[in-house]
Amino acid sequence: MSLLSIVVKALDALDLDDEVNRFVIDRAVNVTRNRPHPWSTKHDYISWSGLTDRSYNARLLPARPVSAEGVGTSRPPLDETVKLFARLPGVNQRLCAKSTGLFPAFAQYLTDGFIRTMLSNDDAQEDRRRTTSNHEIDLSPLYGRTPAQTSALRLKSESPGQRGRLKTQVINHEDYSPFLFGADGVVKPEFAVLDLPLGLKRLTPEGRATLFAAGGDRVNAAVQTAMMNTLFLREHNRVAAMLEKRHGDWDDERVFETARNIMIVMFIKIVVEEYINHINTTEFPLQADPSGAWRAKWNRPNWMTVEFSLLYRWHGLVMENVTWGDMAHPGNSTLLNNSLLLGSGLAQSFVNVSANRTASLGLENASSFMLFAEKGAIAQGRLNNVASYNEYRLTMGLEPARNFAAVVGSSDKPDEQARLSALAARLQGLYGEVNNLEYYVGLFSERVEKNGPLPELLSTMVAMDAFSQALTNPLLSEHVWGNKKNRQLAFTDEGLAVIEGTKRLRDIVDRNAPGLGTGFVGMTRREWKRA
Amino acid sequence: MSLLSIVVKALDALDLDDEVNRFVIDRAVNVTRNRPHPWSTKHDYISWSGLTDRSYNARLLPARPVSAEGVGTSRPPLDETVKLFARLPGVNQRLCAKSTGLFPAFAQYLTDGFIRTMLSNDDAQEDRRRTTSNHEIDLSPLYGRTPAQTSALRLKSESPGQRGRLKTQVINHEDYSPFLFGADGVVKPEFAVLDLPLGLKRLTPEGRATLFAAGGDRVNAAVQTAMMNTLFLREHNRVAAMLEKRHGDWDDERVFETARNIMIVMFIKIVVEEYINHINTTEFPLQADPSGAWRAKWNRPNWMTVEFSLLYRWHGLVMENVTWGDMAHPGNSTLLNNSLLLGSGLAQSFVNVSANRTASLGLENASSFMLFAEKGAIAQGRLNNVASYNEYRLTMGLEPARNFAAVVGSSDKPDEQARLSALAARLQGLYGEVNNLEYYVGLFSERVEKNGPLPELLSTMVAMDAFSQALTNPLLSEHVWGNKKNRQLAFTDEGLAVIEGTKRLRDIVDRNAPGLGTGFVGMTRREWKRA
Repeated sequence: MSLLSIVVKALDALDLDDEVNRFVIDRAVNVTRNRPHPWSTKHDYISWSGLTDRSYNARLLPARPVSAEGVGTSRPPLDETVKLFARLPGVNQRLCAKSTGLFPAFAQYLTDGFIRTMLSNDDAQEDRRRTTSNHEIDLSPLYGRTPAQTSALRLKSESPGQRGRLKTQVINHEDYSPFLFGADGVVKPEFAVLDLPLGLKRLTPEGRATLFAAGGDRVNAAVQTAMMNTLFLREHNRVAAMLEKRHGDWDDERVFETARNIMIVMFIKIVVEEYINHINTTEFPLQADPSGAWRAKWNRPNWMTVEFSLLYRWHGLVMENVTWGDMAHPGNSTLLNNSLLLGSGLAQSFVNVSANRTASLGLENASSFMLFAEKGAIAQGRLNNVASYNEYRLTMGLEPARNFAAVVGSSDKPDEQARLSALAARLQGLYGEVNNLEYYVGLFSERVEKNGPLPELLSTMVAMDAFSQALTNPLLSEHVWGNKKNRQLAFTDEGLAVIEGTKRLRDIVDRNAPGLGTGFVGMTRREWKRA
Repeated sequence: MSLLSIVVKALDALDLDDEVNRFVIDRAVNVTRNRPHPWSTKHDYISWSGLTDRSYNARLLPARPVSAEGVGTSRPPLDETVKLFARLPGVNQRLCAKSTGLFPAFAQYLTDGFIRTMLSNDDAQEDRRRTTSNHEIDLSPLYGRTPAQTSALRLKSESPGQRGRLKTQVINHEDYSPFLFGADGVVKPEFAVLDLPLGLKRLTPEGRATLFAAGGDRVNAAVQTAMMNTLFLREHNRVAAMLEKRHGDWDDERVFETARNIMIVMFIKIVVEEYINHINTTEFPLQADPSGAWRAKWNRPNWMTVEFSLLYRWHGLVMENVTWGDMAHPGNSTLLNNSLLLGSGLAQSFVNVSANRTASLGLENASSFMLFAEKGAIAQGRLNNVASYNEYRLTMGLEPARNFAAVVGSSDKPDEQARLSALAARLQGLYGEVNNLEYYVGLFSERVEKNGPLPELLSTMVAMDAFSQALTNPLLSEHVWGNKKNRQLAFTDEGLAVIEGTKRLRDIVDRNAPGLGTGFVGMTRREWKRA
């Protein structure tokens, strides 16, 4: 990356921020082959179904089935492999230097919208080769992934003061989504078309009464994601009210659709300018400028890959215990239970989440209640015949690791170095040869980068996909965003002003949650210093 | 177009055929805005649903609703407007100088695959704002438009000699699709998932017994399209047999998928090299070379437009009477009735169809039994608030017509000139002002071009869409077709040889229909001479 930093610094010095921005983004995306991908999880060969059936994930690298035995096809026993993620006896969780709890909260809310492995409360309905993704950043956790779901979530009223709104209920003078279950504990008929929250097996009766009717089946998974959805719910209704006031002749449908246009672009702006810049290890702040994408060869429609789906399992960020104000709670108790959010209100919830730290991504650091998720992810990589860790390093333009010590890296702290050496030996024991190391395990075997919350291979892949997915959004196309007249029609002048005025989540919290005051809301810890 | 011809001739003289090819194609596509289109038929404004819901057509130009009265919103009474298409009393059909009946047969079979207005035998299920298209050239008339339909049409057998095949029946020693209806006149249960043939209201009992179980609901519409489907059915099974023989370890699924890969690319080759070259008015023969598309800015996913859907209503090519061997039949009697095909066999049917001429596209020339279709098309344009004829000329880089005489053109034959002058007066009487002329009526008000079967605006729009849709097919992408290793994997060496060896429909007929001999099969009349 040294050449890159030199060029960036040179351009930066010349005050060519837009050019630097385009250069960095272009470079991040062009490290490997662009879409359209020739393969998918439908078949291990190239087929018309594979090229067109978007209920399967695409593939960056072709399948490497075990039937073709050899390097890269080693699959140690699943139960042994998952132990690599478990904390060592008596050892505390390593914490991330940079991130607050708002980072994983946003990451989960974002990725639950388009990384949608076909999971279900009914095991027979699960298929980890398939996806229910729309393959777009479309705020589907808020709006649903189908027109019928969107319809169920909308108020659909032509009455003044109600046009274009999403359904809400008021609790302690604040707006929330309606509850999903009726007093009888059964899903309300109006919400039957929604996807049921995942993980119902683990649902408690107290939790059940607090779950929201939302667009995404992972919105209620944790109180932090429910909080995020509540924020965008309120902002949608606030924007709809603004549009209705300015455009008295618009019907419910037009107010809704235009509010959604504004919300999606606002969300993408947060993705690039707050979230990606939090991940970013350089000092140059990136902007959500789509113009560089209009003529880019990588401007091809999104299609989630099996690799992207796996690399975003940041279960490792979840802490064993969550602090909420002055109380510590087992992390477990904040799943499928929105009581803390409802009790604290939205503003204080954002402050509470931002006051948490996160665990550090990596092996030997998982919260005890998240090991089942790691097991599922490893199995998913195997079911999909995903190629090896070193093959992905190579394809991303990184040097393949020559041995396990190179994978796990080193530390100048003797204790940590001892752990790393032992970890390399564990990996060696399981895989024998470094080229056999599985992709998923390899991703999290690396140490997180200096000045960032992610390890190297993972962050390289995230950057490629994030830019090529966010900036190719249909609303940011040359003919909508890039055409002044169409941009005004699609977003309205007042909508564009709202987007322009939104730089961080805190801005949105501030206008939708009473009582925020000077409370800290952010993804980067205030104590963090660049190394 | 004179600058274009000079450049083409210059490059041609230098023997730079590939460059000419790329130049001509690029120029044809770049006459107007590329995809992604900002508008669709979902809303009259820009919306996320409009940008993503592919069950609606896209739009090249924004909606021009009548509520915004003014130029371009004139809509004369429907019954008066459709009369423009009817032949004048006692006047014979004008015939096309260039085309045989094979041209409309192929055009219909091709476009029925992706121009799929949501029509139905049940009026309540129709929605002329919507489409059931996959938006790809995917041979859906043969394979169905959904995985479930494909599955119903496949033999699905692992037995040697049956792998990868589509279902067939043998009649007079030749293969055809199975019949759709059982002896009881009811759809066979195995085909319940197929879309019913359209136009069942007009079905006769004799016709019913001859209808095929096919992928497309328009395959049985005319004997010519059923013939075309039979050809590709046999070629698919022939290719599958070839693959099975060479790849004894492949299962049914892989043989099927690979045969389909080969068939789709073979079909696209016919589209460009036989069909488009038939439409082409220049002498330079175009080739189906996708490499120019890989870096083209117009390489964006297909999405059928409402304008494209309307311009391809070439009902006007249908003759009042069809000759079949030595017999004349009312054109009407060849609809929803495959008796002629079954009686003659495939080879003789192709010869018979190629021995027909076609009517000439244009007003005052429709076959009596096709007027209902013109009425539906005009209504569809209005329902979708399609902009005016002159707006489309302008957006395609053509000069807008200044008056109705300029629209209808002129002739040096006094009788024809008299008709044209009278036609211009009729148009003036209906629309008043030339800028009010509707798109659909305007398209067919123009005379066909010299050396081609289409009028000017129509052929300009066909060229743009044809290339940008055919050459952006996922199988022709840089990473499949453009990558030697992947190309071999996707098509096999023997499959590539079949594609290479196929230049015209006749080649496919020759290897699948016994008894063709030296019979003429082609889209261009043997008598035709370039003017």
